[in-house]
Amino acid sequence: MNEKQRGKASVIFQNPPLILSAASVVGKKEGEGPLGQYFDQVEVDSMLGKKNWEEAESELQTRAATLAIEKSGLTKEDIRYYFGGDLLAQLIATSFGVMNLEFPMFGIYGACSTMGEAMGLGSMVVEGGFADHVLVAASSHFASAEKQFRFPLEYGNQRPYSATWTVTGCGSVILSANDGNKRINGKKPLAKVAGVTTGKIVDMAFKDSMNMGAAMAMAAMDTILANFRDLGVNETYYDKIITGDLGQIGRRLLLDYLVKAGYDIESRYMDCGIEIFRDETQDTHAGGSGCGCSASVLCAYILPQIRDGVWKRVLFIPTGALLSTVSYNEGKSVPGIAHAVILEKCDCD
Amino acid sequence: MNEKQRGKASVIFQNPPLILSAASVVGKKEGEGPLGQYFDQVEVDSMLGKKNWEEAESELQTRAATLAIEKSGLTKEDIRYYFGGDLLAQLIATSFGVMNLEFPMFGIYGACSTMGEAMGLGSMVVEGGFADHVLVAASSHFASAEKQFRFPLEYGNQRPYSATWTVTGCGSVILSANDGNKRINGKKPLAKVAGVTTGKIVDMAFKDSMNMGAAMAMAAMDTILANFRDLGVNETYYDKIITGDLGQIGRRLLLDYLVKAGYDIESRYMDCGIEIFRDETQDTHAGGSGCGCSASVLCAYILPQIRDGVWKRVLFIPTGALLSTVSYNEGKSVPGIAHAVILEKCDCD
Repeated sequence: MNEKQRGKASVIFQNPPLILSAASVVGKKEGEGPLGQYFDQVEVDSMLGKKNWEEAESELQTRAATLAIEKSGLTKEDIRYYFGGDLLAQLIATSFGVMNLEFPMFGIYGACSTMGEAMGLGSMVVEGGFADHVLVAASSHFASAEKQFRFPLEYGNQRPYSATWTVTGCGSVILSANDGNKRINGKKPLAKVAGVTTGKIVDMAFKDSMNMGAAMAMAAMDTILANFRDLGVNETYYDKIITGDLGQIGRRLLLDYLVKAGYDIESRYMDCGIEIFRDETQDTHAGGSGCGCSASVLCAYILPQIRDGVWKRVLFIPTGALLSTVSYNEGKSVPGIAHAVILEKCDCD
Repeated sequence: MNEKQRGKASVIFQNPPLILSAASVVGKKEGEGPLGQYFDQVEVDSMLGKKNWEEAESELQTRAATLAIEKSGLTKEDIRYYFGGDLLAQLIATSFGVMNLEFPMFGIYGACSTMGEAMGLGSMVVEGGFADHVLVAASSHFASAEKQFRFPLEYGNQRPYSATWTVTGCGSVILSANDGNKRINGKKPLAKVAGVTTGKIVDMAFKDSMNMGAAMAMAAMDTILANFRDLGVNETYYDKIITGDLGQIGRRLLLDYLVKAGYDIESRYMDCGIEIFRDETQDTHAGGSGCGCSASVLCAYILPQIRDGVWKRVLFIPTGALLSTVSYNEGKSVPGIAHAVILEKCDCD
């Protein structure tokens, strides 16, 4: 059924799962950024009508899931599993967000790489024949993340220029079994998942929690090189290579690391965190971050570009910094991880 | 390849993944309990030679993984993916525990149901043809869990009788592709994974964080009933039905709920949390809990019983209470989730 264990970290699907629909719901600040016009919903109330930040983030997941289903033409009952995650301890944004949807559910944690991890697992489960349709989502909320990882918002702490701004947003996609590249319910899928490269934890003994980009850059490189090696390709294989949330500093490091490794990806490189905000006017410093950053940019901007044939093959690499206040306060480093997904234009008529 | 979507929540494997090896590493108190003789390693130093509780828990994962590989006759390079999780925020016990093993890694969060969730995903990935061998693990540590969820140990807070005692332990199994029920490396597998039933979140609006058993009992019932319904069987299909950590109160509730639903499972029922401690002398109250509870009991006790033919078919259902101090302090309930795995005696000669 599948081409087995091509290299150590990559899987190439013989029957690539299709991305049937995608939905993005973001906050006001994201809506005011350069990609504002592309998101499905821009919610101006940062509380989303709820009582606290965590409930607000849960509401992002509920809305994005509901909207992805609506756009797919499927019903809730057609979805076999939910793969979802967020940045909060014990994944509460996800749990409370999907509880009422009553899906058999897999909680996933990969810091800001969660969308890549969940899409990798979801794709294997679909291509392995265990589900016709699964829902995959990742969310973050600026205020719930600041509360979890930084300082109380009321404290108004200063942020160094290397810091990123956690995106308030959720991206949600439906992955569907590919039955001969046919349309599903008359709908043309947005893209197909041609393969995945699963990341390993890369620890650079990096201890600056206000410079996540630097903590993740080497993990991004590790996964990109594993992908090139496993597939026997170089950067020219992809029209676009897109990381999750390295930001300005992580971007520079990744590009420099890769040049030293013999690959110049700059002309085809993009980072979701850099695209989503306009630092000059939005005071976001190094860029956007959070699981919801790459997930919402994927759904709002990347997938439509692939659907429209602007890009035919994209390496999408959500990047995660495995930060915890507990381990960090105990003097531990912030290791990184990055999970890649190969997205291609769908051949459906 | 697979029998597709049998019912809504269960998958039956046509080519059941084999459990090639299993390892358990636990703390002193667990070693003094009724199952003490069965664990591979009983570590008397609750710090495992490390500087803090979190590092101690990471060490449990490192040791259990290393031992499982050793017992399998495989090398580290044969393992394609690591599926692991723990109870701590941002899965730090897992991340720091497996970092140096350098596996492509999937972080999983399902509270104390994590071993069931990870085995379900690992089995699908193996049976789908994406890996020959994967490592699946879950850990907990009494002191890191108390620190995360309760009070400082130094405070010496009183625990109600409904409370459970978090197990210090890790269980780790290697799931291997089944090539015609043959031995692997000359080794006879411990058992096979015949199928899985993936749980959904069940919220009973239950708000007592010191009575996890009650919070999880309905989730356990929901998954057990889904399993019976999907497979068209009743309790007599299994020699043993084993929950993760419902404890004495959750046990009673589950048995009562199931009787009302028309199933009397009591004679074949067991709960890992009740088995692992002897409350009369160990002061553990309702039983053991934590991801490491069901995971270590599975590896040390359940799998050998299946290997030896004492039980031929077991429904193993790790149960999780989706507790977070953040959501709890905001007045939210503690929803439950339970993920079931059907374990059968291996037909290998």
